[in-house]
Amino acid sequence: MTRQELVDQIKKKKSFLCVGLDPDMSKIPSCLQQDPDPLFSFCKMIIDATAPYAVAYKPNTAFFEAYGVAGWQALQKVWAYIPKDCFTIADAKRGDIGNTSRLYAQAFFQESSSGMSFDAITVAPYMGQDSVSPFFEFPNKWVIVLALTSNTGSSDFQQLQQLSQKPLYEDVLQRSQAWGSIENLMYVVGATQATHLADIRRVVPHHFLLVPGVGAQGGSLGDVAKFGLNQDVGLLVNASRAILYASSGLDFAEAAEDVAKNYQKEMETYLREFGILG
Amino acid sequence: MTRQELVDQIKKKKSFLCVGLDPDMSKIPSCLQQDPDPLFSFCKMIIDATAPYAVAYKPNTAFFEAYGVAGWQALQKVWAYIPKDCFTIADAKRGDIGNTSRLYAQAFFQESSSGMSFDAITVAPYMGQDSVSPFFEFPNKWVIVLALTSNTGSSDFQQLQQLSQKPLYEDVLQRSQAWGSIENLMYVVGATQATHLADIRRVVPHHFLLVPGVGAQGGSLGDVAKFGLNQDVGLLVNASRAILYASSGLDFAEAAEDVAKNYQKEMETYLREFGILG
Repeated sequence: MTRQELVDQIKKKKSFLCVGLDPDMSKIPSCLQQDPDPLFSFCKMIIDATAPYAVAYKPNTAFFEAYGVAGWQALQKVWAYIPKDCFTIADAKRGDIGNTSRLYAQAFFQESSSGMSFDAITVAPYMGQDSVSPFFEFPNKWVIVLALTSNTGSSDFQQLQQLSQKPLYEDVLQRSQAWGSIENLMYVVGATQATHLADIRRVVPHHFLLVPGVGAQGGSLGDVAKFGLNQDVGLLVNASRAILYASSGLDFAEAAEDVAKNYQKEMETYLREFGILG
Repeated sequence: MTRQELVDQIKKKKSFLCVGLDPDMSKIPSCLQQDPDPLFSFCKMIIDATAPYAVAYKPNTAFFEAYGVAGWQALQKVWAYIPKDCFTIADAKRGDIGNTSRLYAQAFFQESSSGMSFDAITVAPYMGQDSVSPFFEFPNKWVIVLALTSNTGSSDFQQLQQLSQKPLYEDVLQRSQAWGSIENLMYVVGATQATHLADIRRVVPHHFLLVPGVGAQGGSLGDVAKFGLNQDVGLLVNASRAILYASSGLDFAEAAEDVAKNYQKEMETYLREFGILG
C-alpha cells in the first residue's frame, strides 16, 4: 500500500486506528479455548468486529511463534483474512546482517516464498544500516524502525545521552532517514513517551509514526494526536490489549467493537480539529 | 545445558566451534534442490559431517522463516536432529516488551508449546532490560545479547560514543551484566572486531562470547583466540558460510567436514597454548 492510499483510507474511515493482534492463550475467552484453531478464530472475530473502525492490523509474531508450526499456520491465515483495504504490519522486530535480513524480508513480504505479504514490518535498528536496507528493496513495502518504545526498558539505551548531547533514539531517527523515504519508512514511538513527541516531530516532521502504548500501557490518545498529527495525518495509533481483552466473556467481540468505535470517534474529532477532515 | 557441561564438551571435543545453520536455497547444492525438504536434508548432512568437530549448532531463523510454515517445520526437524551433547542456539535476534518477549521465550525454550527447546537464543538489546529479562526465567537456558556485531552497520549505533565517553556496545555490556549471570548470559561479539576483544574482555572477563564472522566475513580465528579465551574457555566461535558452502558440488558434506576439522585442529592448538588442555 502506498502512502497516498493509506492517507485516503484514513480519511475514508475517519480513523488512524491500528489494531494489534496479540492473541494470548491465557487471555482468550474460555469459549474459544476448545476451538481447533483458537489463535485464528479469535483474531478473525476481532477483525470482523473492528474492521469498520480500523485502518491497520498488526499481528505480533511472538504470539504465533510461541505455538510453533501451528502458530505460523494461524499467522498465515490471519494475514490472509485481514481485509485488503487495511494496512498490514508484521510486528516482528527483526534485524540481522544484510544477507540474513534479506531472508526476513522474504518471510514477511514475498507471498510466493512464505505465503504472506504484509505491507510493513517492524525492525530493530541496533545492527545499523545494512541490517535494515534489504527491507527497502521490496516495492510498495514499508519498514517501521523502532525509535522510542513504550516499555520501561526504553530508558536503558534508547534514552542514553550521546556525546552529541542527543539521546540515542534521536540518532536513530536522524541517521536512518537517509535509508528510506517518507514513502516507505515509519518509526515506532511509544505513546507512553508522548512528551517526547513534539521533539520527535521536529526531527521527522513528515514521516508516519506507529504509536503503540495507548490503552493498557497508559498512553493518552489526546496527547499523541496533539503532538503527533501532521498535514498528511502521519499517525497510526495502535491498541492491542485494550481492544482484544475488553471483555473476557462471550461478548468479547462486541466489547472489542465498542472500544474500537470509541477510538475511531475520538480520532475523528482530532482529525477535524486539525483540519484534515472538512 | 549448564556452563560446566558446555566447558566439559569443549574439552572433550577439543573444539569451541559453533556451526551456523543458514541453509540458503540459492546456495544449496543442486543435487538437493529437488529434495522434498531441502532445508532439513541439507542441514542434516552438514550436521552428520561436522558433529565430531563442533560443540554447538546455531540455526538462523531467517533462513527457515523465509519459507513460511514449511520452513518452520524444517527448523523444528533440524532442532530435533542436533545431537543432544551439542549446545543449540536459536539465532533469532528477538526482543520486544516484557509480555511479548515471554512468548518468544516460549517459542524457543518450551518444547511442550512450540515443539522446540533450544539451549540459547540471541536477543537484540535496543528495547532494554524488560525486553531481555523474560528469557532468563527459564532454568538452564541462555540469553545471548548482541553487543558488537560483525557487520559494517555496527558502526552506525553500536560504536557511537556516549556522553560517558564509551561506545554504546560497552554500555550494553555493562548494564546487561546485572540482568543475568555468567551461568546464563553470553554476548555476541563479531570476529571482524577482534581488535576490540581485549577491551571487551576487560568489561566481561568471565562471560562466554559467541563470535561470528570467522571465515566468509573475514575474521581471524587466531586473533579471536588470543584476545578472547579465558580460563573457562569463554568462547564459541561460529562459522556458517565457510563450512556450509565449502563446495557447491556433490562433495559438499566432505568439504564441510574438512573445513570444520581444520577449525577444530586450530582451536585445539590454541586451547593447548592457553593451558586449557593438558
